[in-house]
Amino acid sequence: MNGTLYIYNSLSRCKQPFKPLNAPHVGMYVCGPTVYGDAHLGHARPAITFDLVFRYLQHLGYHDADEGEDKIAKKARLENLEPMEVAQYYTNRYHAAMDKLNVLRPSIEPHASGHIIEQIAMVQKILDHGYAYVENGSVYFDIEKYNKEHPYGILSGRNFEEMLNTTRELSGQEEKHNPVDFALWKKAEPKHIMRWPSPWSDGFPGWHMECSAMGCKYLGETFDIHGGGMDLMFPHHESEIAQSVAANGKQPVTYWMHNNMITIGGQKMGKSLGNFITLDEFFNGSHINAKGEEMIAQPYSPMTIRFFILQAHYRSTLDFSNEALQAAEKGYNRLMEAVKAAKTLKATDGAQPLDIQKIVYACYDAMNDDFNSPIVIANLFEAVRIVNTVKDGKAQINAEELALLNKLFQDFVFDILGLVESNASDGNGALVDGLMQTIIDIRKQARANKDWATSDKIRDELAKLHITLKDGKEGTSWVMD
Amino acid sequence: MNGTLYIYNSLSRCKQPFKPLNAPHVGMYVCGPTVYGDAHLGHARPAITFDLVFRYLQHLGYHDADEGEDKIAKKARLENLEPMEVAQYYTNRYHAAMDKLNVLRPSIEPHASGHIIEQIAMVQKILDHGYAYVENGSVYFDIEKYNKEHPYGILSGRNFEEMLNTTRELSGQEEKHNPVDFALWKKAEPKHIMRWPSPWSDGFPGWHMECSAMGCKYLGETFDIHGGGMDLMFPHHESEIAQSVAANGKQPVTYWMHNNMITIGGQKMGKSLGNFITLDEFFNGSHINAKGEEMIAQPYSPMTIRFFILQAHYRSTLDFSNEALQAAEKGYNRLMEAVKAAKTLKATDGAQPLDIQKIVYACYDAMNDDFNSPIVIANLFEAVRIVNTVKDGKAQINAEELALLNKLFQDFVFDILGLVESNASDGNGALVDGLMQTIIDIRKQARANKDWATSDKIRDELAKLHITLKDGKEGTSWVMD
Repeated sequence: MNGTLYIYNSLSRCKQPFKPLNAPHVGMYVCGPTVYGDAHLGHARPAITFDLVFRYLQHLGYHDADEGEDKIAKKARLENLEPMEVAQYYTNRYHAAMDKLNVLRPSIEPHASGHIIEQIAMVQKILDHGYAYVENGSVYFDIEKYNKEHPYGILSGRNFEEMLNTTRELSGQEEKHNPVDFALWKKAEPKHIMRWPSPWSDGFPGWHMECSAMGCKYLGETFDIHGGGMDLMFPHHESEIAQSVAANGKQPVTYWMHNNMITIGGQKMGKSLGNFITLDEFFNGSHINAKGEEMIAQPYSPMTIRFFILQAHYRSTLDFSNEALQAAEKGYNRLMEAVKAAKTLKATDGAQPLDIQKIVYACYDAMNDDFNSPIVIANLFEAVRIVNTVKDGKAQINAEELALLNKLFQDFVFDILGLVESNASDGNGALVDGLMQTIIDIRKQARANKDWATSDKIRDELAKLHITLKDGKEGTSWVMD
Repeated sequence: MNGTLYIYNSLSRCKQPFKPLNAPHVGMYVCGPTVYGDAHLGHARPAITFDLVFRYLQHLGYHDADEGEDKIAKKARLENLEPMEVAQYYTNRYHAAMDKLNVLRPSIEPHASGHIIEQIAMVQKILDHGYAYVENGSVYFDIEKYNKEHPYGILSGRNFEEMLNTTRELSGQEEKHNPVDFALWKKAEPKHIMRWPSPWSDGFPGWHMECSAMGCKYLGETFDIHGGGMDLMFPHHESEIAQSVAANGKQPVTYWMHNNMITIGGQKMGKSLGNFITLDEFFNGSHINAKGEEMIAQPYSPMTIRFFILQAHYRSTLDFSNEALQAAEKGYNRLMEAVKAAKTLKATDGAQPLDIQKIVYACYDAMNDDFNSPIVIANLFEAVRIVNTVKDGKAQINAEELALLNKLFQDFVFDILGLVESNASDGNGALVDGLMQTIIDIRKQARANKDWATSDKIRDELAKLHITLKDGKEGTSWVMD
């Protein structure tokens, strides 16, 4: 019914019926832009042109390899692109989730598979310095040799014997001179998809190599801060140190920072444990656990999640519970309400000082004390209390302190804690505010006219949208719950 | 005033004053997630933790290398990371712009710098097959040799003599046996930042190599569709063909597709010509050209831009003008209004056929005729006309055709043309609709009460928000202009 697709082929200079090589799979390659400036209309055209092509082919039932893998699993050639497609797919989704959480993008986001040359060069350096050996095409780090000159375990605090006891036996262990040794380069099994040529074998780098090689390439042999989750401290970061010291003869990092885990019912939340709840599930408010229990009582906005995490110091464990998230949601809303209200407060000449400066200093002290965000938040709530007393006319604030108060919120709530007003996080924030102002004005007029029917109707309709109006000294404000 | 920052160092197991190695630059490395599944709360914590660290360091006046380059330009070590940071920065911005235009992400987005090994391997293959030569550490493609066996110019239709006359003299030309020859690998000048080891020199791949190597790696030696802008046809795509034929002995692509240019005052819009307007400038409605003239009369929504581009066939030139964009905006709004209205139409039993099926066929015929989107749009407006006559009660539609009509819009407007309702493109779409319904209900009540003051006030306030109410047979609807 859809007829035959004819494509103008620049090569044949005529329209030809479209016959894919491996239907239903279509291989399409489009040259992307060289990104050294902002995209302009000229960039939009190829993007939209080939988006149209992609969408139509998809509509016709063709697809690329990340769909219907079963169908194409047999095609060895196509199998090769599967891992990269999977990585791309989840990378895109990861970025989308991080954007919702208002996480700033790193200034460089290098990929291990894009730095094989650098990793091979570093493995060679370690071999040249005598801290590694080659067995059957794989290269292993010689920890016993290294440990004689440099303590292995300085980061995790583990000692050699302890490690010997805790090391699991994995495939390829028999090639190791010592079970604690780890792979710098692994020879690929015939079936292994990700493989690159190297002086030792067609294979792939050991998983500790990437961070050492990329950190060194982009930040230098020694750089300031290396961060990661506590579960990466051993063996990953410990091995990074050993690799860098063996290759460059110096410690790679001045400050190692490790965030603690999120727990759920006291147990670490993680893919391996199968007890994780995805961020989208939090945002949508739906997650059924393995036992078939609904784990999330309601949707939680990205800012609620962000506030929840900031309410704990990064080195403390943080236990998930609906109660904790609901408390975070209330706290976040209270804070944001006050931040909004502070902008509308009127200064009073000669008002008694309210010690805003003390709060500012306390916030800096907290941040300077190893980024203690919960203490910052506690101090911000002290500022919230002041805003509300002034709003309710129970206190006055002078112009100087009002400016300082608003600067405090700008600096710590928005710039440093990275919170955003939930309905400012999208393009319609202004529109929503405009519509709300219209509704508030109509309601005000209705009440002036003693038209209670209308003002009640407005209250009820807004309630359906989870919007509550608050009549205060400074006029009517609104909050979403 | 901000005091001293103390960081708990997992290595020293104590809090230490933060002393960066190269203030004001701070080098920070954070291990990212292995993206083989959706991000969960456990991923949010390190992301937000080190986002907090990044934001605070930035607040304290530290920065990474993509700011204040002048300050650090002297630091050779840091210079190395500059190009990657610039690329990352603009890649992120490019993605953001493409997301606004609702362009689907490619299933793989490989980077040239991440595929040096593959490019070196392909250069080696071409050398082994005798179609290239090494001069002073650089490798050049031997077009004369190639042209004897395979016509060089089959894509662009240029002939050898013509090329000889049109080839510009560039640095390094003296190394070429023939000015038409192009570089497969370039030896890097000592100052050149992007460089990798190779059998021939520390250098970088010629700019045609990347697409040949990555296309072959992920799509196979021959794949279906290769797209790009017309300006890439020669020499870039022509050289891709030559490289692939020389390396693999077969044509790399079955269908070559090239979109035409966007022109501004008849001249191609491009960075090189300095006459481009960035997408963000279109979205914000501000662009001053070199002559200091304001080029954009108003902001244009991403969907207006998308519609504007789809209104021309991809192989025709498309000339930018405010008139054309304003027409596109009107057209887009009219279409979307009808799409919304179609959902609310009531079917009439036994209504005379309106030939919706004919429109559906016409849309497929247009798409099948080399993706002729302007014809599709013309046919969609035929459907818009039908929607409006039925809406105004001038015609009836039966249930079967009404379903077909809505499917037509779903398939072609949303799935294939990739348009979205402008206020559905963000999270507040539902909220805005809800608030508008509230306002419409209040207005209805006011008019019933002959309370013209209120209904006029609503009209005026909404006008300020560029919202117009339309009273029709099916009730009151609203549009944004």
